Amino acid sequence: MAGNRVVVYKGPGEVSIESVDYPKLELPEDVVNGLGIKKKAPHAAILKLVTTNICGSDQHMVRGRTTAPVGQTLGHEITGEVVEVGEDVLFVKEGDICSVPFNIACGRCRMCNEGKTGICLNVNPARAGAAYGYVDMGGWLGGQAEYVMVPFADFNLLKFPDRDQALAKILDLTMLSDIFPTGYHGAYTAGVTTGSTVYVAGAGPVGLAAAYSAQLLGAATVIVGDMNAERLRQAESFGCATVDLSTGNELPDMIEQILGEPEVDAAVDAVGFEARGHGAGAGEAPATVLNDMMTVARAGASLGVPGLYVTGDPGGVDESAKIGQIGVRLGLGWAKSHSFTTGQCPVKRYNRQLMNMILADKAHIAKAVNATRISLDEAPQGYQEFDKGAAKKYVIDPHGMVSA
Amino acid sequence: MAGNRVVVYKGPGEVSIESVDYPKLELPEDVVNGLGIKKKAPHAAILKLVTTNICGSDQHMVRGRTTAPVGQTLGHEITGEVVEVGEDVLFVKEGDICSVPFNIACGRCRMCNEGKTGICLNVNPARAGAAYGYVDMGGWLGGQAEYVMVPFADFNLLKFPDRDQALAKILDLTMLSDIFPTGYHGAYTAGVTTGSTVYVAGAGPVGLAAAYSAQLLGAATVIVGDMNAERLRQAESFGCATVDLSTGNELPDMIEQILGEPEVDAAVDAVGFEARGHGAGAGEAPATVLNDMMTVARAGASLGVPGLYVTGDPGGVDESAKIGQIGVRLGLGWAKSHSFTTGQCPVKRYNRQLMNMILADKAHIAKAVNATRISLDEAPQGYQEFDKGAAKKYVIDPHGMVSA
Amino acid sequence: MAGNRVVVYKGPGEVSIESVDYPKLELPEDVVNGLGIKKKAPHAAILKLVTTNICGSDQHMVRGRTTAPVGQTLGHEITGEVVEVGEDVLFVKEGDICSVPFNIACGRCRMCNEGKTGICLNVNPARAGAAYGYVDMGGWLGGQAEYVMVPFADFNLLKFPDRDQALAKILDLTMLSDIFPTGYHGAYTAGVTTGSTVYVAGAGPVGLAAAYSAQLLGAATVIVGDMNAERLRQAESFGCATVDLSTGNELPDMIEQILGEPEVDAAVDAVGFEARGHGAGAGEAPATVLNDMMTVARAGASLGVPGLYVTGDPGGVDESAKIGQIGVRLGLGWAKSHSFTTGQCPVKRYNRQLMNMILADKAHIAKAVNATRISLDEAPQGYQEFDKGAAKKYVIDPHGMVSA
Amino acid sequence: MAGNRVVVYKGPGEVSIESVDYPKLELPEDVVNGLGIKKKAPHAAILKLVTTNICGSDQHMVRGRTTAPVGQTLGHEITGEVVEVGEDVLFVKEGDICSVPFNIACGRCRMCNEGKTGICLNVNPARAGAAYGYVDMGGWLGGQAEYVMVPFADFNLLKFPDRDQALAKILDLTMLSDIFPTGYHGAYTAGVTTGSTVYVAGAGPVGLAAAYSAQLLGAATVIVGDMNAERLRQAESFGCATVDLSTGNELPDMIEQILGEPEVDAAVDAVGFEARGHGAGAGEAPATVLNDMMTVARAGASLGVPGLYVTGDPGGVDESAKIGQIGVRLGLGWAKSHSFTTGQCPVKRYNRQLMNMILADKAHIAKAVNATRISLDEAPQGYQEFDKGAAKKYVIDPHGMVSA
Repeated sequence: MAGNRVVVYKGPGEVSIESVDYPKLELPEDVVNGLGIKKKAPHAAILKLVTTNICGSDQHMVRGRTTAPVGQTLGHEITGEVVEVGEDVLFVKEGDICSVPFNIACGRCRMCNEGKTGICLNVNPARAGAAYGYVDMGGWLGGQAEYVMVPFADFNLLKFPDRDQALAKILDLTMLSDIFPTGYHGAYTAGVTTGSTVYVAGAGPVGLAAAYSAQLLGAATVIVGDMNAERLRQAESFGCATVDLSTGNELPDMIEQILGEPEVDAAVDAVGFEARGHGAGAGEAPATVLNDMMTVARAGASLGVPGLYVTGDPGGVDESAKIGQIGVRLGLGWAKSHSFTTGQCPVKRYNRQLMNMILADKAHIAKAVNATRISLDEAPQGYQEFDKGAAKKYVIDPHGMVSA
Repeated sequence: MAGNRVVVYKGPGEVSIESVDYPKLELPEDVVNGLGIKKKAPHAAILKLVTTNICGSDQHMVRGRTTAPVGQTLGHEITGEVVEVGEDVLFVKEGDICSVPFNIACGRCRMCNEGKTGICLNVNPARAGAAYGYVDMGGWLGGQAEYVMVPFADFNLLKFPDRDQALAKILDLTMLSDIFPTGYHGAYTAGVTTGSTVYVAGAGPVGLAAAYSAQLLGAATVIVGDMNAERLRQAESFGCATVDLSTGNELPDMIEQILGEPEVDAAVDAVGFEARGHGAGAGEAPATVLNDMMTVARAGASLGVPGLYVTGDPGGVDESAKIGQIGVRLGLGWAKSHSFTTGQCPVKRYNRQLMNMILADKAHIAKAVNATRISLDEAPQGYQEFDKGAAKKYVIDPHGMVSA
Repeated sequence: MAGNRVVVYKGPGEVSIESVDYPKLELPEDVVNGLGIKKKAPHAAILKLVTTNICGSDQHMVRGRTTAPVGQTLGHEITGEVVEVGEDVLFVKEGDICSVPFNIACGRCRMCNEGKTGICLNVNPARAGAAYGYVDMGGWLGGQAEYVMVPFADFNLLKFPDRDQALAKILDLTMLSDIFPTGYHGAYTAGVTTGSTVYVAGAGPVGLAAAYSAQLLGAATVIVGDMNAERLRQAESFGCATVDLSTGNELPDMIEQILGEPEVDAAVDAVGFEARGHGAGAGEAPATVLNDMMTVARAGASLGVPGLYVTGDPGGVDESAKIGQIGVRLGLGWAKSHSFTTGQCPVKRYNRQLMNMILADKAHIAKAVNATRISLDEAPQGYQEFDKGAAKKYVIDPHGMVSA
Repeated sequence: MAGNRVVVYKGPGEVSIESVDYPKLELPEDVVNGLGIKKKAPHAAILKLVTTNICGSDQHMVRGRTTAPVGQTLGHEITGEVVEVGEDVLFVKEGDICSVPFNIACGRCRMCNEGKTGICLNVNPARAGAAYGYVDMGGWLGGQAEYVMVPFADFNLLKFPDRDQALAKILDLTMLSDIFPTGYHGAYTAGVTTGSTVYVAGAGPVGLAAAYSAQLLGAATVIVGDMNAERLRQAESFGCATVDLSTGNELPDMIEQILGEPEVDAAVDAVGFEARGHGAGAGEAPATVLNDMMTVARAGASLGVPGLYVTGDPGGVDESAKIGQIGVRLGLGWAKSHSFTTGQCPVKRYNRQLMNMILADKAHIAKAVNATRISLDEAPQGYQEFDKGAAKKYVIDPHGMVSA
């Protein structure tokens, strides 16, 4: 138990596995110094990772589209076994297997009180909200590792009721730390309910999770759009209709072919600022998905925007994009009285109920997103394949606890 | 009763009063032909105007910032006495004095069923939603007139319970047709509630109504921003704090001076696409207010956007603006998990409860917006003064029914 | 087309089919005289019945548990083909097949504006809310008939988009007039959502519809309780767990056996005031279901109460029951901060989205409630079998339009 | 600092001040043993009481209407200065003046996560929810004392931003621990909003706080009912209308005299199970207020029920009342589609925003409820006067920190 290994960003396109110190029950320096909070953390726990997934938002860093420094540790989709707890951890104990929401939250501030754990005020001196292993997110150690420290453990950890059951369903349960709630949040804030028609932009893991969640929420028809044929096939595998945006056909026309009308009741942006225009060779056009959604969502619709938009994008396509200023055709939405919900998913708002669905055998999210187990040493390869558009969700299994 | 007189747009900067036919219980040609609805309208009523106000959104047309043709009749803020009803008008009768929501709605479509009367599906062949006397809004006759036809009268009309009481409070009640509900909608959808701190961008009549509504909703402090000193004084007259955007000071700094912190709980955009940048000589910069609001609203805030954004703006400052594409710094809001509500206020959602406040002597909106009575013949002058920034809300009194 | 035949209450336990006049586009006398509304109804339509179902609430009248006079016409679950429209009916036309919400509503009053069509103010002089063929509900003709008049047709009718498709799915679509929305309302107002555990009291058609709706809303587990073994088998046929209340076992214990804990997240009362106590020979005890729900619903739960409670019950078990006063253990719920939603389902709030689910082949309600086609002449027998507890939902087919 | 003095229940009608040990950072035995939680409490703080109020719900115990044993310590309306904190208290510190919600909550369980702090799962082995100094509420020491221990201090304490300002407004701020939020909760859950007409049953401190809160929420007219003339005068002092229930006049008639109609939009029960019937000498009739509210609230209304209903009442008027079974005329409400919200107010949901109103000089709750300062030694007399119906809210000042 003397060491730890973690995935580290080494420069554009490159990650490696490096050895670091075994975690302590202490807050990171950024938080201690920036917010003046006690370093000693009796509220924290150490987890031995059971699974830890590679996320599309990790790719923004690895592609060099952020200010993440070389040496940034990675990983925020964490499921683990509790191996040590501080003396103010009262409700989880050693041996418990738990899901860890990617958003770190104190449970004690005004935002946490309101359930807005994605914008906790006490975990990041730079802004509201924090995450494990992410640039500008508070300096917390990445969770694509063997061990990780989780602060405010009673608040942050979602304990699975039964260890054996948890391990048996681990490829589903591992999605509770981020993409399943994030996709659900997208669909939920888009107002998806019984009988809705839904358009989900993007067939990456979050898009697939949004589409799957839309089905759980009772959608009559879910349409997924992407340019990647393999990912569209994945969406079809669980009953979605699809539109291929590489064809150059107009999106409303393609939707009309499916629904008999060119509009949907609800739309979800599961792409964000790295959006490209339509057609086979289209370049980056960051407002494409937003403008698409306002075009195809019916009057009165709500639009869910879990896809990431940034305040600055050093690799942006033009001067405006570099300062996060994008050409939104807001009048399209205004004329239709659209509303918009943006921001990180507050995972705790949804993870318990989605866990219940998995444990009751009513949700099979691993299959929907094509969960694929790899070892910690295979993480660099997983990053590469994912970046090339593999229709897979890579689940790292650092201790070989996931059965084949 | 053989004729009617109405305010007409005559070209940029010019309106006049013209004689037109007395209205009939018939739908306009645009609606009849475009939507295939029966021309004969037994559901309609004719109203003799008691009051009819000049609105900031009329100014977009009169300034030549829309595609309104010369000859467009004007006016959508209507209060009147019922003088004739069709045979399917069951619940209002001749002699009733009623407020008319500016958004025309059928009361029978899916949107109206959901209370979304601003985007009714049966009153405008060009898009969802309609209004009296407005370009691209269904071809309905303007209400800055002596008489006007109101379709679906039982659904659209809000009857005042007592005629004498109504006439006594008419300068307050006349605000129920548009700006009082519109301001309230802005504050309400911004989540203003007991104890909120609020920033309202714009001190025109809608901004003042939003500020006043924020007080009714229980705000602890309301801050209004504008560049027009007279309008800022008007906001102060009913207890608002103000920030002068012509000074070039930073908005967060000015807010911090008032509140002790640079952020507010809720923000309302009562300006829209004709926004200008900050500082004395700043030119038009259509996303200024949106970007300001994302800057000063705290994490987790809702932003109310009753200010108009358009799908096309022939007089826009650049090619992007001309197609309604504006440079929004969406990442600012995304990082704070902001949500946004846009679009026309569905007046019926609020007008009854605001009427109750006026009748119970709990709301004095006429004073807050500085209601100023003029005759129909003075309307052209009223347009001019309003365009120059007078801190007044002009109320036309075509039949001399408003006591001095 | 000169006549009409309708099911009529003839005294306790007895109904017959009688000939009456063909309906006219006129309001009933009760409404005309009691509310002073014009008799002539240009807003109305005549429908030829396609299907019309027998409802559990009809049984209250037929069992003699109400003040319904001999001669009361029956039937409020109506699906029909439009055969005549008044001149102010603009959006449905002859030949359209439509579902008719059982609650009659004007679409023009404050309650209808708020979507509360179950308590419309303009259709019943005796109280808020009306229905076809029901005592104290406004004097509207019953719809277990060949033809029926529907007032405010544009507002009340839900048009099916395609006639052939509608007839092919008619046994599902016929449930949209009452029990499918009513069951859904029960589950929805009980807060059922993704991952909920749910207890539904009563396995009659509304209970089954509530259980089925709970599944659509994403429940992890639905438990249905009743004393009728055949009805419990019906609940199991679509995946519900069941508890047999005739056994005398304690309800929390039976729930614990299924869930591992004695409480559920949400509970629905689909029984109402004719509830009986537990155990094989238990007599009527009107608050049994309410008290059960407070016992088994967890702290913080919402309870949906679509089951009918009455203001007076001439056949009640004791003097209290006769004036509708029942022994509720409210402290049970108060200690758990329960909330309660009572009253008729406002059908229009849900029928469109449930129609979409049926048409998209995502909801199979006919099978869940065991829809059983009978002719109009078989209605008396249907009433008898239903009263004996048949696990069937009887669908009358007056014109032989339902294919076998 | 070696000792502590606290108000203690000595038998029906009697309280005294007794010396007890100075509190420790430890959980009470009931919680430690009953729930298996660590005794040592690094999450706790010790507060020196600044103010601590006598509550109507204390009276239930002191009148002998509960199973409270002789020796029960009393007091749950606590405002204090932090004098010691455990090592996991990160965000409040010695010297901070804080309001303490009466409901004790862990901040870490499912209920707290949902904001339902009145039914926390980790603070009371007997049921969900706990409070200081109350029978069956977890065994926590009463706060009508010199010092008190507050567990989960970061979560439970609401810190006032400025010490001097806090002491200057202490008679208002002291109401944040219970009655101001409780009254607000009643009005809020009754759906009071801009323009509502409201009936509040009961003019004790919670009723007055509910009436005052209804005004903050924008009510057009608030009517308060009671039998105590002095308390009705208190309600009138801040602009309420009143009805005197001792007169024997019918409640709907008295309301009609005020409003012109016999119904209100919203109703609040601020009385609970010790309700009496109407008329001068009326005896206890526990469902009187509930039945009144269903009678006078309009169709579609929500009813807020902060008044306490119990699961057992040893002193109840009859056998039913003793087991908490009361004769509710539920059909009255069902026919009007009423909904009901019951239970303890979750104080944290509202206390911050109400504090903001007090600090911004927009809420003067001390005046509305007639806050009256007494010393700790005067507490027994305060209990007596309050029990006799004094229209005062007694605020104990154990350390003489409240200026005259």
